[in-house]
Amino acid sequence: MYEALKQRVYEANMQLRDYGLAPFTWGNASECSREDGVFAIKPSGVSYDELTPDKIVVVNFDGKVVDGDLKPSSDTMTHAVLYRKFLTIGGVAHSHSVNAVAFAQAGYPIPAFGTTHADFAYGEVPCTRKMKDEEVEYYYEYNTGIVIVECFREKKLNENEIPACLVKNHGPFTWGASAMEAVKNSATLEIVAEMAIKTLTVKNFAYKKEFNSMPKNLLDKHYSRKHGKDAYYGQN
Amino acid sequence: MYEALKQRVYEANMQLRDYGLAPFTWGNASECSREDGVFAIKPSGVSYDELTPDKIVVVNFDGKVVDGDLKPSSDTMTHAVLYRKFLTIGGVAHSHSVNAVAFAQAGYPIPAFGTTHADFAYGEVPCTRKMKDEEVEYYYEYNTGIVIVECFREKKLNENEIPACLVKNHGPFTWGASAMEAVKNSATLEIVAEMAIKTLTVKNFAYKKEFNSMPKNLLDKHYSRKHGKDAYYGQN
Amino acid sequence: MYEALKQRVYEANMQLRDYGLAPFTWGNASECSREDGVFAIKPSGVSYDELTPDKIVVVNFDGKVVDGDLKPSSDTMTHAVLYRKFLTIGGVAHSHSVNAVAFAQAGYPIPAFGTTHADFAYGEVPCTRKMKDEEVEYYYEYNTGIVIVECFREKKLNENEIPACLVKNHGPFTWGASAMEAVKNSATLEIVAEMAIKTLTVKNFAYKKEFNSMPKNLLDKHYSRKHGKDAYYGQN
Amino acid sequence: MYEALKQRVYEANMQLRDYGLAPFTWGNASECSREDGVFAIKPSGVSYDELTPDKIVVVNFDGKVVDGDLKPSSDTMTHAVLYRKFLTIGGVAHSHSVNAVAFAQAGYPIPAFGTTHADFAYGEVPCTRKMKDEEVEYYYEYNTGIVIVECFREKKLNENEIPACLVKNHGPFTWGASAMEAVKNSATLEIVAEMAIKTLTVKNFAYKKEFNSMPKNLLDKHYSRKHGKDAYYGQN
Repeated sequence: MYEALKQRVYEANMQLRDYGLAPFTWGNASECSREDGVFAIKPSGVSYDELTPDKIVVVNFDGKVVDGDLKPSSDTMTHAVLYRKFLTIGGVAHSHSVNAVAFAQAGYPIPAFGTTHADFAYGEVPCTRKMKDEEVEYYYEYNTGIVIVECFREKKLNENEIPACLVKNHGPFTWGASAMEAVKNSATLEIVAEMAIKTLTVKNFAYKKEFNSMPKNLLDKHYSRKHGKDAYYGQN
Repeated sequence: MYEALKQRVYEANMQLRDYGLAPFTWGNASECSREDGVFAIKPSGVSYDELTPDKIVVVNFDGKVVDGDLKPSSDTMTHAVLYRKFLTIGGVAHSHSVNAVAFAQAGYPIPAFGTTHADFAYGEVPCTRKMKDEEVEYYYEYNTGIVIVECFREKKLNENEIPACLVKNHGPFTWGASAMEAVKNSATLEIVAEMAIKTLTVKNFAYKKEFNSMPKNLLDKHYSRKHGKDAYYGQN
Repeated sequence: MYEALKQRVYEANMQLRDYGLAPFTWGNASECSREDGVFAIKPSGVSYDELTPDKIVVVNFDGKVVDGDLKPSSDTMTHAVLYRKFLTIGGVAHSHSVNAVAFAQAGYPIPAFGTTHADFAYGEVPCTRKMKDEEVEYYYEYNTGIVIVECFREKKLNENEIPACLVKNHGPFTWGASAMEAVKNSATLEIVAEMAIKTLTVKNFAYKKEFNSMPKNLLDKHYSRKHGKDAYYGQN
Repeated sequence: MYEALKQRVYEANMQLRDYGLAPFTWGNASECSREDGVFAIKPSGVSYDELTPDKIVVVNFDGKVVDGDLKPSSDTMTHAVLYRKFLTIGGVAHSHSVNAVAFAQAGYPIPAFGTTHADFAYGEVPCTRKMKDEEVEYYYEYNTGIVIVECFREKKLNENEIPACLVKNHGPFTWGASAMEAVKNSATLEIVAEMAIKTLTVKNFAYKKEFNSMPKNLLDKHYSRKHGKDAYYGQN
């Protein structure tokens, strides 16, 4: 049983690796069956090269293993909280992708700078608050899920409209209807984060007027070397 | 009919993907036949892996489908406006490539900083104005084309000399004699945009004198380890 | 003899190349056998394409060749010092990976900005002091090892907790239980360094309030083009 | 005749493409035979996919074709000047690689920030002055070579010690004993330039003290999740 679920979760985890979002073993994806009250997730610390569908672990919403021989991902309780609190989601993914991590490490949300972002999420992707000492010391992974949910509730965000959250000094969690959609949202988030860092760079380096041009003579020369009646580049 | 046109548009769209300019389904290329009053374009939301020449949609300059079973790209009316207003162009491409998007999201034109740019376009690549509420609400994609054309007309730019425009908070549209040339211009624009961001970085970080050097002793040591009569790096 | 050791060192060096950390011949990895009082290391200036296990050179802890026909890496004495002073390590790697080198060239440690770093090292990765003239002129590679060890001793760092050091104006050295683990630490360090540069960028460009948003109308339009009951993107 | 020379120049040009330094047809490499008073160079505007050894053009030091059916590179006269003035060089390469171009477009030399640079060049890689109107209008490519040579003579640089020069608002030219060595120097220059931009970024963003750390509790938690006796990450 759970064969189809484990197969889908296996494929989603491999896709996470193939997108380049999860170097080494850093990342995991899961998918839940609400009917069965379980979700399937990557085993802890297993390299993608050795991952097979039968190594995927099935746990209940308390994180207890119900199927599988291996230990589930160390982030399992974070996934469990998200499934328990975000009642419409079907899959969760976590990665350490570089650009999304940069915002998380800086403690800033990713602003909605353009339509690539808007196609994906209805507003900025938020960043959680700093976790308290006791939240880190006891039930850390559970509390990681709690601060994500708290962040959405306090900012009155809708998890169906914004399928991602940055955990401060850590990295992104994303979700969707399935494990594969959650992984696709991780990939989109990473592109959107890269665009946002470069947008901040252009905005901050807003160039003075003299930055706008190369010498006019060189512009004329190079354009006319390749274009127009006097072009002499190429074989014609 | 339109077989050759659809084949060319198929190949141009696949090239857009192969250049890495269009992750997922984000991007589209088209080519027109002015004789027939039509253009062929990518179907909406179809992944590149599933794209085949017969899935390419042919529409007239009002965006009405004249050949094909699928819905054309949601950006079809933007292409239509460009064909109607820029009378000498034969192909159009749209992408969400990261560096060009960064300028679009920042709302800045891409300055002509050097000969790589001048080989491609005769001056800075402009960025459109913010679209008005009613332009976004009604006929949004049509109006996207309109603000591109307005941008060129108001700045007295020649679309044959500058084959690209940034749409504010969105991304680049490029054009050319064919769909493939429009796609090549998208690829060139992306490289030129990356160079421009890095040029702005160097200009803004214009280093003070002490930035110019590593310690002289280390320079001497490493250079002479590999070069000259006392070199001891390698097997000789 | 030393066949197994040389094979492991060969594989670790090839992995260094495959991670993209060592363009051309810039990089080397070694592993020691404390029982035999030797370590095996890449030969100097041999390209990765020509490297084979039997070309790996075995030297004692004074850097004298005990097995092999080629000259060992020019950095051999740096490795030797690390093995002599860091008594629990089994492998050492050196690369010129771009992001780690950027911190080394700037003379800054890599701050522990987030959990990707904490999973790898218990605190910031330090950067050595400038080397003195006589340290560069005489026994330069030996002294490179000495300043690494001095850096750890003076800052009271534990080499088992922080498996990496930046050499000022040069680049990173990493270590671990084996050559392969040292190489993996080089790869992790490079990712952590890239994240740190991007984190610094976001922190420094901390956007003002108006940076936070694209126009609300455009956000609404694009989100609703793809999501919800009025979505018209795609084939459904 | 010239078969061996043309073969070497063909291979060097293909290597330029394989290093990713020359998108489309942007770049060229040449090698001279001082004995024969000629050099072989890439034909103008021919794509790398269509390049074959027999398409390589042989010209004399005045740039006149002595062997081959195609037009030589539009940059031929720049190469010719370098061979005439830098009497010990055997090969020249030109590319539009992104990071080196960024320095050229900003008009700054690439500082010698570290040993990667010192292994390659004995000091900063200079950038030429702005070219005068008449230098651009008449004999532009010839004058491009002249400003490179002038730059080296005025700064009293030795072309055997620094095998590269940035042409302002344009890009890098490199040289070496052969075409292949010149191409390798182009690749090294690009890596060194990328390191230099990132070094400038770290230096300029020199972080204040509070930038140095993630919360101590999170550092402890994550380090101890993976390391030490209480580690619970992975399958052991």
